[in-house]
Amino acid sequence: MRGFFHPQSVAVVGVSPRAGNLGRNIVANLETFGFTGPVYYVSPRGGEYKGQTIHQDVRELDQVPDLAVILTPAATVPEILESCGQKGIKRVVIESGGFSELDQGHGQLEAQIKDTAQRHGLRFIGPNCIGVICAQSGLAVPFPMLGQAVPKGGLSLICQSGGIGLTYLHRAAMEGLGIAKFASVGNKANVNEEDLLAYYLEDPDTQMVLLYLESIVDGRRMCELIRASDKPVVVHKSNIAHLSHGIAQSHTAALANDDLVVEEALAQCGALRAHTVNDCLTILKGLSMPRPKGRRLAVISRSGGHAVVAADAAFREGMELPPLPQSYLEPIQEAFRASVIKLQNPLDLGDLFHFELYVEILRGALAQDNVDGVVVVHGYRGPEVKPSRQFISQAGDLARQYDKPVALVLLTTAEEMDQARQISSLPIFDAPEEAIKALSMAQKAGGKKAKQGLGCAGAFDTARAERILATAGPDGGLELPEALHLITAAGLAAAQALGFPVSLKAVGASLSHKSDQGGVVLNLGDAGAVEQAAAKMMKELKPNRLVVMSMISGGQEVIVGAKRDPSFGPVVLVGLGGVTAEVLKDVRLGLAPLADGEAGAMLDGLKGAALLKGFRGRPPASRPALVAAVMQVSNLISRLPQLWELDINPLLVGPGGAMAVDARVSARPPKPRGH
Amino acid sequence: MRGFFHPQSVAVVGVSPRAGNLGRNIVANLETFGFTGPVYYVSPRGGEYKGQTIHQDVRELDQVPDLAVILTPAATVPEILESCGQKGIKRVVIESGGFSELDQGHGQLEAQIKDTAQRHGLRFIGPNCIGVICAQSGLAVPFPMLGQAVPKGGLSLICQSGGIGLTYLHRAAMEGLGIAKFASVGNKANVNEEDLLAYYLEDPDTQMVLLYLESIVDGRRMCELIRASDKPVVVHKSNIAHLSHGIAQSHTAALANDDLVVEEALAQCGALRAHTVNDCLTILKGLSMPRPKGRRLAVISRSGGHAVVAADAAFREGMELPPLPQSYLEPIQEAFRASVIKLQNPLDLGDLFHFELYVEILRGALAQDNVDGVVVVHGYRGPEVKPSRQFISQAGDLARQYDKPVALVLLTTAEEMDQARQISSLPIFDAPEEAIKALSMAQKAGGKKAKQGLGCAGAFDTARAERILATAGPDGGLELPEALHLITAAGLAAAQALGFPVSLKAVGASLSHKSDQGGVVLNLGDAGAVEQAAAKMMKELKPNRLVVMSMISGGQEVIVGAKRDPSFGPVVLVGLGGVTAEVLKDVRLGLAPLADGEAGAMLDGLKGAALLKGFRGRPPASRPALVAAVMQVSNLISRLPQLWELDINPLLVGPGGAMAVDARVSARPPKPRGH
Repeated sequence: MRGFFHPQSVAVVGVSPRAGNLGRNIVANLETFGFTGPVYYVSPRGGEYKGQTIHQDVRELDQVPDLAVILTPAATVPEILESCGQKGIKRVVIESGGFSELDQGHGQLEAQIKDTAQRHGLRFIGPNCIGVICAQSGLAVPFPMLGQAVPKGGLSLICQSGGIGLTYLHRAAMEGLGIAKFASVGNKANVNEEDLLAYYLEDPDTQMVLLYLESIVDGRRMCELIRASDKPVVVHKSNIAHLSHGIAQSHTAALANDDLVVEEALAQCGALRAHTVNDCLTILKGLSMPRPKGRRLAVISRSGGHAVVAADAAFREGMELPPLPQSYLEPIQEAFRASVIKLQNPLDLGDLFHFELYVEILRGALAQDNVDGVVVVHGYRGPEVKPSRQFISQAGDLARQYDKPVALVLLTTAEEMDQARQISSLPIFDAPEEAIKALSMAQKAGGKKAKQGLGCAGAFDTARAERILATAGPDGGLELPEALHLITAAGLAAAQALGFPVSLKAVGASLSHKSDQGGVVLNLGDAGAVEQAAAKMMKELKPNRLVVMSMISGGQEVIVGAKRDPSFGPVVLVGLGGVTAEVLKDVRLGLAPLADGEAGAMLDGLKGAALLKGFRGRPPASRPALVAAVMQVSNLISRLPQLWELDINPLLVGPGGAMAVDARVSARPPKPRGH
Repeated sequence: MRGFFHPQSVAVVGVSPRAGNLGRNIVANLETFGFTGPVYYVSPRGGEYKGQTIHQDVRELDQVPDLAVILTPAATVPEILESCGQKGIKRVVIESGGFSELDQGHGQLEAQIKDTAQRHGLRFIGPNCIGVICAQSGLAVPFPMLGQAVPKGGLSLICQSGGIGLTYLHRAAMEGLGIAKFASVGNKANVNEEDLLAYYLEDPDTQMVLLYLESIVDGRRMCELIRASDKPVVVHKSNIAHLSHGIAQSHTAALANDDLVVEEALAQCGALRAHTVNDCLTILKGLSMPRPKGRRLAVISRSGGHAVVAADAAFREGMELPPLPQSYLEPIQEAFRASVIKLQNPLDLGDLFHFELYVEILRGALAQDNVDGVVVVHGYRGPEVKPSRQFISQAGDLARQYDKPVALVLLTTAEEMDQARQISSLPIFDAPEEAIKALSMAQKAGGKKAKQGLGCAGAFDTARAERILATAGPDGGLELPEALHLITAAGLAAAQALGFPVSLKAVGASLSHKSDQGGVVLNLGDAGAVEQAAAKMMKELKPNRLVVMSMISGGQEVIVGAKRDPSFGPVVLVGLGGVTAEVLKDVRLGLAPLADGEAGAMLDGLKGAALLKGFRGRPPASRPALVAAVMQVSNLISRLPQLWELDINPLLVGPGGAMAVDARVSARPPKPRGH
C-alpha cells in the first residue's frame, strides 16, 4: 500500500486545457501540497498544459511512473488501465464514476477493470472516489480543489464517500487535528478498507485512524487488525436505514441484525464507534491528548451552572469526580473574596478572578494521584482575552508536563474560539459534555485485549454432528429431533421424553413459530390427553411429525444462538429467552470462536443480568452451565462450516445445569447460481 | 411580572465610582440596550458617578422607581430591601450572592428578605442571580458586561444559572436566534420559574420559551401552564447526578426516581426536554422555522455520503422520506451530465452544478403534498460562495412562500458559516443529523393536547378507604390484608383464600422484600403442607401475621403503583411486573389524575407492550381491565391526600380481568417538625 502514498512520480490521466477540466485540479493540489517528483499529464486528446506536453497514452512516457491517477469517462477507463498495465505501472487511483454504483450494466465495466488489474498484477483504489493524500510526501490527488495543504499530524483517514471525506478533512483542520494520510476508497473494487487499515496501522506517521464506511468488506479481518494494534481506531459506520435483513428464519437472525453485529464486533475488538461526524471529531479530539489512565476527573469551572452540567455529563459517561484533598483545596479557599463557598469537585471558582492562580489550581489538580484528567470550563470576553490566551497556552504545557489530558471548554466569541484553536496545543471544546465524552472515549481506547484461549476443550463429536447436518432438507432446515441431536453432539443437554406430564410439539417445514399456531401443547398429564392433542394437531397443522418431550419447569429461559454474518463471519448470540427475547431485545453478540471470558462478559452485559443471578428468591441460573452452553454453540458454528444458523430457545438454566427445550438449525444453503 | 421587564424607571443599588465596581456594568448594560427611562444610582457610601448623584438610600429619591436592582454584600440586603419596601417600590431584582446557596446560616438571611417582601407586598427576583433583560423595553440589568444588545426576536429565557444564561444569550445570538426576554432566577426565594413562565406564555413578544433549571419548584403548575399554551417550551433540566432518592420503600418509589418523573411529566404536557446546551440550540433552531405539519421530509444533497447520513438520521428520528413523484424527478434527471443516476429521496445531486436549477429543485420539493419539510445539504467553497449565498437567501423566501421549513446544512469554512448566518432568514446547521433532529422536535412541539375526562367514574368507597388508611402503623405502612382491602375499596379485584393450592405469606413491618427471605411459599397442596410451612416461617421470620391466598396462575404480571413527588404531586406508574420490573426498568409514568387515553398511552409506551397483547400464543392481558386498574390507582392517589405510596406488584392480568396478588401501601407520614 505504501506505493499509493509515497510515489516518486505521478501520471495524471485526464488533464486537458479545456474549461472545467477537473484533472487540472489534481495538478493544482499536487502543487499546493508540495509534491516534488515529476508529474506527467496524459489525455487521449493530447495537447499542452502549463508548457508541458499532454501525452496521449501512458505508454508514451519516458519513465514508468510509480502512480497513475485516472479521471476520464468510465467507458474509457478499461483501455487506459490496460495501457497502465502494459507500461508496468503497479499503483493506480481510478477517480472516475460510472461503475457498479450506478447499476448492474456498469458493474460489468467494473468487473473488466478488476480483471485487467489481476492480469497485470497491479493494484488500484476506486473507482468512483476522490483519491489519496499523504501529508508527508506531498501527494494530493483529489479532483476537488483543496485550496490549501492540510496541517500535518497523526490522523489518517479512510472514507467511503468523497463528500464526507472532504467534510472530515475540513473539519479536522478547523479543530486543529493534523493529518497523516487520507484515502477515499469509492467502490472498493480492488483495494478495500482493510488493506488500507493494515497499512495505516503499520505506518509510523499514523497515530490514530478514522474510517467512514457505508459497508464493510471483511469485518472479521477489520476486527483482527484493530485488536492487534495499539493505535486507536474510530469507525463511523453509516447506512443503517436501508439495510435489507431478508426474511429471518430464526430468532437469532432476527435479533442479530447487520448493524448490531457491527456495533458489538467493533466494541469487542476495541474500536470506538461513532454515529455522526460531530461525534467522531469529539472522539478524535480526546485521542489527540495524553491518554487518561483511569476514569477519575477533576472539573474546574468559573460558573456554577457549567459545573452542574459537567457533573451530569460525568455521571452519564460513567466518569468519576473523586473528592480532592484539603491540602489542595485550602490554599484556593483562602484566595476567595467571600470565604464561605465550599469547594469540592467540580471546583466552582465563582467570584475568583485571578489568572496566575488559575494556572496553580490547574497544576495542583494535575498533580493529584487520584486525578486522571482535568476539564476546565472557562468563559471569557473583552478584557479577559489576553490573560485567557496565556492561560490556554500554559494549560498545554502543564498537560505535557504531567502527561495527563486537559480538556479546555471555552465559552467565548466565534472569532476568539478560532484564535484559541490556533494558539492552543490542546483541542478546544464548546461544551462540557463534549469534553467529558472525549475523555471517556479516549480512556476506553486504551482497553484493547488480545483474544486468548479460543474455543473450549469440551467434548465434541464432529463426525456425528456432520452426519446430522447432512439430513437437512432442501431449505437447509433440520427437523426438531435432529436439531436436538446436533446440540447433544456438541455436549449440551437436551430434553427427552421421560414421563408425564409431557409436552407435544408439531414438527414440519412450514411450522416456524410453533407456539403462534397451536403447534405446542404443554402439561399433558396422561396418554389420553396426548392422543387427543395429537389428533387435533395432525388435523389442523398437518405436521410431518409430532415430538413428545418431558415438561421441564423452573430455571431461567435463555436464548443461545449463532449465525453467519456475510462480513463478520460466525457470530454467537445470548439473551433472555423464551418469548421475551424478541420483544425486549436484550441480547449480546460475540464473534465466534469466543475467547476465555467473552461468554461471561456477554452475560454480564445483558440488561437483565441480575435475573440470571437469582433475583428476589428465584433460583439462580448456573453460570458455569450457561457459559459452557454459549461456548459449545461457539464451537459448533466455528467448527462446522456447513452450519448456517442455530437457535436454542429456550435453553432452561437452573441452579444445577442447562437444558435445551427447543431448537432450530439450518445447514448452509447451497450457493445461488452465478456466484 | 410585567413590571420586572417594562419599568419606566430603575434604581441601581450598589453603584460606586471605585475600580472593579460591578454596579457600573448594570448602568452600562442599560445604556447599551437603549433603556430610555431615568436610572437612579444608590449606594450607602454616596458620592457621584457620571455627573449624577449617588443617593445613600432609595428613600431619598424624588420618585418611586418602578424597579430596584440590588448588588451589594449579602449582609446589607435586608436593610436595603426594607428601604425599598418603605419607599413603595414593588419590583426588586436582588443579584447579590451569599444566601441559601452557601449554607443554612446564610439561609436565615434569605428567610429575612422573604419576610420583608411579604410585609411590603413587593416581589423580587433572586437573590444570587444576574437579573433580567427585555429586548423591547431596553431593560438590561445583568452585572456582567454584555458589550452589545441582543438581537430582538421571539425567544424568552428563564435560567437558574447566570453562567449558563450568558452562554445561551451568546450562543443564541451566534445562531441568529433573536431574544424577547431573559430572566436569571437564582435562588428563587420569591419569584420562581413558574411565575415567569406564566407571564412569558401571555407575553405577546414571546413566541417560544427556554428554561434552564437545576430544580423545579412546582412541577405540576409548570406542566399545566405548558399544556394550556400553544407556545413551544423547551426545558433543559440538569442536576441529575447528585439526586438523593432517600431509601425507597416501594418498587414504585425506586423506579419513579426524580428525573424519570421530570422526563415523563414534561413529555406528557408537550414540553420538549433537552439535556445539553447544544441540543437546546438545535431544537430552538427547528422551532424558529415554519412548523412541519407532519413527519415526511425531502432531503436534497450534493454529496451521496451526506445523503446516506441524512437517511440514517431520519430513520433514527422516526422521520419519513417518502418517494417523490416522477413528474418532479424527470426534469431533474434530464439536467444530469451522465443521465444514468437514479434519483430518489434523498435526492443525490451528484455532478449537477447549476444554481438556478437548485432553486427550482427546492421549490419543486416544497410544492409536493407529501413533503412537510426539506433538508438541503450544501457544501461549497471558493468560486461557489457567491451563487451559494444567493441560493441561501432564496431558500428563505421559498420557506416563507410555502410555509414549510427548509433546514440548510452548510459545509463550508467557519468564516462563510458566519456570513451565511447573517444573510439567511433560516437557521444554519453544520450536520444533517442536527437539521433532522431540529425538524423532528419542531414537529413534535405541535402535538400538545388538553387533558380531558380526568379520572374515571368507577365505584369508589372513599369513606371505607379512609378508614383503612387510618390503620397505618407509625411508619405509615399498612399490613398486607389492609393493603388489599384498600385496593378492593377502589374497585379492584384482589386475591382471596379459596381452596388448594394456596400460597402462604409472612406479614410484618420488618419483612419488606418477602420473596428474598423465604417469606413466601407457593403451591401448598393441602392443610398439612400449610401447617408445616407456617411453623417454619413463624420460627425463622417472626412475622406479625401469616396470610393464606389462593394460587393464581396464568396472566401477565404487571406492576401498577403511585407515589407523591414533592414537585409534581401524585404520579401513577405502570410496568411489566413481578420480579422483572426492577431489573428491566420497563415502566411509564403519568401525573394523576390521568385523563382519558393516558393510561392506554402509558401501556403502549412500554418496551414490552407486545407481551401484554398475547405474544406467541400466550393469553393476552385484558386491556380494559388493565386500563381500569391504572385509572383506579390514579383515583386512589388523587382522592386520598393521606395516601403516600401504593404498589400493586404483581397485578395478574389475564384475558378475563385483573387481580392484585400483592400490595404495599403507605399513608402519608406525619410532617416532620419545623414545617
